[in-house]
Amino acid sequence: MAGNSIGKEFTVTTFGESHGKVIGVVVDGCPAGLPLSEADFQEELDRRIPADTRIVSPRVEKDNASILSGVFNGYTTGAPIALTVENKETRSSDYEAVKDLPRPAHSDYPARVRYGGFNDHRGGGRFSGRVTVALIMAGVVAKKLLNGIDIDVLAYTQAIGQVKSDKKLTAAEIKANRYKAATRCPDPTCAEEMEQAIIAAKEAGDSIGGVIECQTHNLPAGVGEPLFDTLDGDLAKALFAVPAVKGVEFGVGFKAAELRGSENNDPFLVVDDKVVTVTNNAGGVLGGLSSGMPIVVRVAIKPTPSIAKEQQTVNIAKMENAKLSVKGRHDPCVVPKAVPAVEAAVAVTLVDHLLRVGAIPRILKER
Amino acid sequence: MAGNSIGKEFTVTTFGESHGKVIGVVVDGCPAGLPLSEADFQEELDRRIPADTRIVSPRVEKDNASILSGVFNGYTTGAPIALTVENKETRSSDYEAVKDLPRPAHSDYPARVRYGGFNDHRGGGRFSGRVTVALIMAGVVAKKLLNGIDIDVLAYTQAIGQVKSDKKLTAAEIKANRYKAATRCPDPTCAEEMEQAIIAAKEAGDSIGGVIECQTHNLPAGVGEPLFDTLDGDLAKALFAVPAVKGVEFGVGFKAAELRGSENNDPFLVVDDKVVTVTNNAGGVLGGLSSGMPIVVRVAIKPTPSIAKEQQTVNIAKMENAKLSVKGRHDPCVVPKAVPAVEAAVAVTLVDHLLRVGAIPRILKER
Amino acid sequence: MAGNSIGKEFTVTTFGESHGKVIGVVVDGCPAGLPLSEADFQEELDRRIPADTRIVSPRVEKDNASILSGVFNGYTTGAPIALTVENKETRSSDYEAVKDLPRPAHSDYPARVRYGGFNDHRGGGRFSGRVTVALIMAGVVAKKLLNGIDIDVLAYTQAIGQVKSDKKLTAAEIKANRYKAATRCPDPTCAEEMEQAIIAAKEAGDSIGGVIECQTHNLPAGVGEPLFDTLDGDLAKALFAVPAVKGVEFGVGFKAAELRGSENNDPFLVVDDKVVTVTNNAGGVLGGLSSGMPIVVRVAIKPTPSIAKEQQTVNIAKMENAKLSVKGRHDPCVVPKAVPAVEAAVAVTLVDHLLRVGAIPRILKER
Amino acid sequence: MAGNSIGKEFTVTTFGESHGKVIGVVVDGCPAGLPLSEADFQEELDRRIPADTRIVSPRVEKDNASILSGVFNGYTTGAPIALTVENKETRSSDYEAVKDLPRPAHSDYPARVRYGGFNDHRGGGRFSGRVTVALIMAGVVAKKLLNGIDIDVLAYTQAIGQVKSDKKLTAAEIKANRYKAATRCPDPTCAEEMEQAIIAAKEAGDSIGGVIECQTHNLPAGVGEPLFDTLDGDLAKALFAVPAVKGVEFGVGFKAAELRGSENNDPFLVVDDKVVTVTNNAGGVLGGLSSGMPIVVRVAIKPTPSIAKEQQTVNIAKMENAKLSVKGRHDPCVVPKAVPAVEAAVAVTLVDHLLRVGAIPRILKER
Repeated sequence: MAGNSIGKEFTVTTFGESHGKVIGVVVDGCPAGLPLSEADFQEELDRRIPADTRIVSPRVEKDNASILSGVFNGYTTGAPIALTVENKETRSSDYEAVKDLPRPAHSDYPARVRYGGFNDHRGGGRFSGRVTVALIMAGVVAKKLLNGIDIDVLAYTQAIGQVKSDKKLTAAEIKANRYKAATRCPDPTCAEEMEQAIIAAKEAGDSIGGVIECQTHNLPAGVGEPLFDTLDGDLAKALFAVPAVKGVEFGVGFKAAELRGSENNDPFLVVDDKVVTVTNNAGGVLGGLSSGMPIVVRVAIKPTPSIAKEQQTVNIAKMENAKLSVKGRHDPCVVPKAVPAVEAAVAVTLVDHLLRVGAIPRILKER
Repeated sequence: MAGNSIGKEFTVTTFGESHGKVIGVVVDGCPAGLPLSEADFQEELDRRIPADTRIVSPRVEKDNASILSGVFNGYTTGAPIALTVENKETRSSDYEAVKDLPRPAHSDYPARVRYGGFNDHRGGGRFSGRVTVALIMAGVVAKKLLNGIDIDVLAYTQAIGQVKSDKKLTAAEIKANRYKAATRCPDPTCAEEMEQAIIAAKEAGDSIGGVIECQTHNLPAGVGEPLFDTLDGDLAKALFAVPAVKGVEFGVGFKAAELRGSENNDPFLVVDDKVVTVTNNAGGVLGGLSSGMPIVVRVAIKPTPSIAKEQQTVNIAKMENAKLSVKGRHDPCVVPKAVPAVEAAVAVTLVDHLLRVGAIPRILKER
Repeated sequence: MAGNSIGKEFTVTTFGESHGKVIGVVVDGCPAGLPLSEADFQEELDRRIPADTRIVSPRVEKDNASILSGVFNGYTTGAPIALTVENKETRSSDYEAVKDLPRPAHSDYPARVRYGGFNDHRGGGRFSGRVTVALIMAGVVAKKLLNGIDIDVLAYTQAIGQVKSDKKLTAAEIKANRYKAATRCPDPTCAEEMEQAIIAAKEAGDSIGGVIECQTHNLPAGVGEPLFDTLDGDLAKALFAVPAVKGVEFGVGFKAAELRGSENNDPFLVVDDKVVTVTNNAGGVLGGLSSGMPIVVRVAIKPTPSIAKEQQTVNIAKMENAKLSVKGRHDPCVVPKAVPAVEAAVAVTLVDHLLRVGAIPRILKER
Repeated sequence: MAGNSIGKEFTVTTFGESHGKVIGVVVDGCPAGLPLSEADFQEELDRRIPADTRIVSPRVEKDNASILSGVFNGYTTGAPIALTVENKETRSSDYEAVKDLPRPAHSDYPARVRYGGFNDHRGGGRFSGRVTVALIMAGVVAKKLLNGIDIDVLAYTQAIGQVKSDKKLTAAEIKANRYKAATRCPDPTCAEEMEQAIIAAKEAGDSIGGVIECQTHNLPAGVGEPLFDTLDGDLAKALFAVPAVKGVEFGVGFKAAELRGSENNDPFLVVDDKVVTVTNNAGGVLGGLSSGMPIVVRVAIKPTPSIAKEQQTVNIAKMENAKLSVKGRHDPCVVPKAVPAVEAAVAVTLVDHLLRVGAIPRILKER
């Protein structure tokens, strides 16, 4: 398969560029009989853009999903579901002046090499954060399937720059509060500090990174297809498709490298006739298979490459050094926008693996 | 594809269990005309097992590769290359007593669920670290292909528990020294401290984790197939197939989440008519494509699950709580053994992507 | 991958139903730098519908392709190309009355079983011949790539019912004349007889089948990825995606079963320093690889299932026997419409295989 | 995936050459809990070589399967099953003299082009009919899975040259008698005539082709993943991996092209509360999905390329015309040997599709 599809049983193929006609996705492998309408996509699309212009780019477009295929009489048919969102607010002129000046830390330069200069550079083109709209739409379908078997996927902002949320929150609290603050942090005190950190970076003509955690509750044990299609490996791969992700870790993650076995191992217990672990340092994955405990995965999001501060770059046409100060409408921090994309990447991967082990039927109900 | 294959153009399929007849691999997609003999595999197989019984399990078997197919008159033929190593030193009785007592942090429990109790539990079976022998053999083929186009893949131990090697080493130093110490750390002072840390853990009936870094030098810019088959995503997926990996990060990785754009962005420069970056915080990947700078990826390796110290577990047959103290021959630290496996996972993924962009020809030379 | 994608390097994913909003396709893996515009699709889309209402269904809609992504400034970008055609002329009421009466020889019955009754049955839904519009659009992209390396793919009608065209025609004659007659037979005398055969079937309230041959000229030797991704196997698989195909054969095909080796073997000759064969009974494929001679493949197209004549069927809701006389607008013969679809299926498969052996570069020219 | 694997859920990867160490296969995706032993493979391996040296090559080796992995305590474990058969009777010297003289109708020439002359040419190497041993071993596993859900796959010889068996035989008759005659024709009179036809061809220093039909009984309706992973398309692709296949057709096949709809359509009937068809001209496939009726597929097998009669070829090293009379041990007719391979190709494809629709569970029983 060429590189724009992911998933073996639940296959998501995305298309579209930031300043092209549409952002779109084909979801193939969705079981027949899932109720689905265009309205189902609205909440999640709205969540991508916090309604707080102090911390997001002024390119605020209302995105509405169109279902082009795969749904009939309000239910999925088993045929591929094509979904699009129109690109409306495009100001391509912002980019013309700087097309030969690759932004440091952005895909501009390698994309130019990879596609021989033919790639659509406007607004980052295919590499824009806006393209996550496609993933998010696929995630809506995936989450409806997961909700049908009581699995909840919950992403939220855990850190912005040095501001870290360490408070232990229940799944219910995360679910209820994560979209209340523009920063997508369910801990209100921390959310406010994060907002200040983003504003400070913006005012300095700069940007800032952060960490998103995603928890999955209620996934049964034994999901995954090791040795190569491991659950953690496939989740990691999907998560690296979210722009700006630079690291992925499960459970205590990199911290595990510093621990001894007696500290890191999660003891088993029988509780209510079920096998559970006392702690969940493993983040719910053992040997590439789900352990039955919550899947806890964290991704590092780098600061937005596009900043107003002057930077050193090169003029690629002239092959000489140059200076760049990025104009245009850019987010000082992409973490809040990335939260629903992370959730979607996880949801899509879980559905694929649940279909592979037969834990979601091919027909959801008989008509 | 079922889950035991990886790679689209250079496809690696592994088979075999720790205490079965063999560990094996089929490498499909290797170009014709690569010189290859059984002797080529010996150095790398030997590297898997440090000759220092103070820090590794006493199960020290001499592994020799057999080429079953795909090589004729000393050259690869373009047909699939099947490779096996026999399992000789198996003491399966060690495991019989504890087969109903899943080891905390091990795949025992979810594997039992996934395979309905039919999985070969002896020595971890399919989930044993020994299975990396298959990946390492595929890596030998991959590295020969990479060396042919002057690409070097260099993994080494960067941390054991709290002992971290921060010294900046050149690629030449890493290459020359990483296999000198049993811990696979190319910095001799640090290597010694790491060894002590492992011995201390072992003497405490415990185990210890660590960090492996892998650098790839000389990879051209523009390699990768975004949006989903990103270079970083595919590397991460392959790396999670190495047992005990709990996190993967590129460049400054999770540290990027704490930085501002002006700190994290790598400025471009023209040097000798080539585009380079002043720093390499990105670890050589931008937008899922190689940037032309070294690929720097780090993995967190958790401490070995199997420890002598008594642990809390469950008797899965009786569904009751139980105690477990793991006997048998176990490594107090799997980091040193994982170094060649990490290198192999990276090499195999790079060859796959280089073939996809046409950077390795389908026939290496004409006969 | 779920079932609506084909091709490993040149991946075609189709979506859409006969009476839904659109028929669409995502073409992933097209090299950057191919000139492409919406006008490029018009000729081929027009070819799907012969302008002769005596032999085709009165549902004659003018199809126009929209490019949704993957093209910028008139060239392909290397990103996925999404293409759609709107469905305008839909009379879904024709189908409501008979939705519980599966048409003999149609997919109605097994589709209902497979999708639990949720499939869009209107106009055959996902199984309609109209869906070949997606394949044809992908074929346009593929044929532009093939033309760039002087490869010509030429499908034409070879038989309608008992009327068979045995006249040996040159590639130039086939190319010049195949779309002149509504039956898509390049032999004018035969074309006229075929037309009469179709009209006779129609007047009898019946339908009729036929044979399409597709020749590919100028494909180099050695293309194919045996043992499983054989050139003939992959062509056959793609061709069975064209509705109504019941058989695929290469060269003399089933006739070869009746021959002796001395009759069937194609003797080699050196001509102008090239290896050719005197005959081409093999149809250009040996051992799953192209031989360098023209690829000659033939498909059997069954008669249209939907006929006015009364037929025996079942009422699937009541599970009782029933009678059916299909109303609505149906083609008495789908062979003419299938000609460009067959050509597209072959073109798409060849591009995939040419990319796999590196015979089409990843960037067509440098900008 | 490189080209030596087939199947998405039940993935078969073959390796090995005619005169190499082994012929082997990795079967990935087999559910856990299937009883399997080396003895299970013997009958099918023996069936590949008719015990009648008048019609087969004198290279008669006793093949025995070794299970290298994936089976523990007599049951499949869910891990990949690697299987090998040793090559014992190899006389490679037969081939040295003619390695620059490609056999007409054989893969010698295109393989040399594809692999730059590095392919193992001995005995046809990777392209030898002997390689079907790998497919047959995978087929044994597949057929055990199918038998567990009462599905029977029955291939047999239907024609040798002009001798055709038109007698309607029941599934029980085919099953009981097809391996009684060396020609694998279950109709005894016809079997004898076929044998004479083969002997006559052999005595003339020639070879002869034939037709194999394969019937699958009891497959439920609705199996298949259209539009591209159609049941017929995937069967055809797998069948073209059997050497010498030149055509594949379902039901009445090419005959359908000559019929009218009223003749070809299979009327539906309700019988015993099940939907059946009166005739089965469709061969059990409609719209790429199984119809619930028997799958009937036929393949054309060309005459063996290697014949004693002198033929026209080229000396590829000298690029000049040459004469060739093939020595060595060759079958005058490969049809009888291909019967179990055809059956295996069908069985392997059906299991893949049954797993995809969830009709075979991932764990066959709980331990």
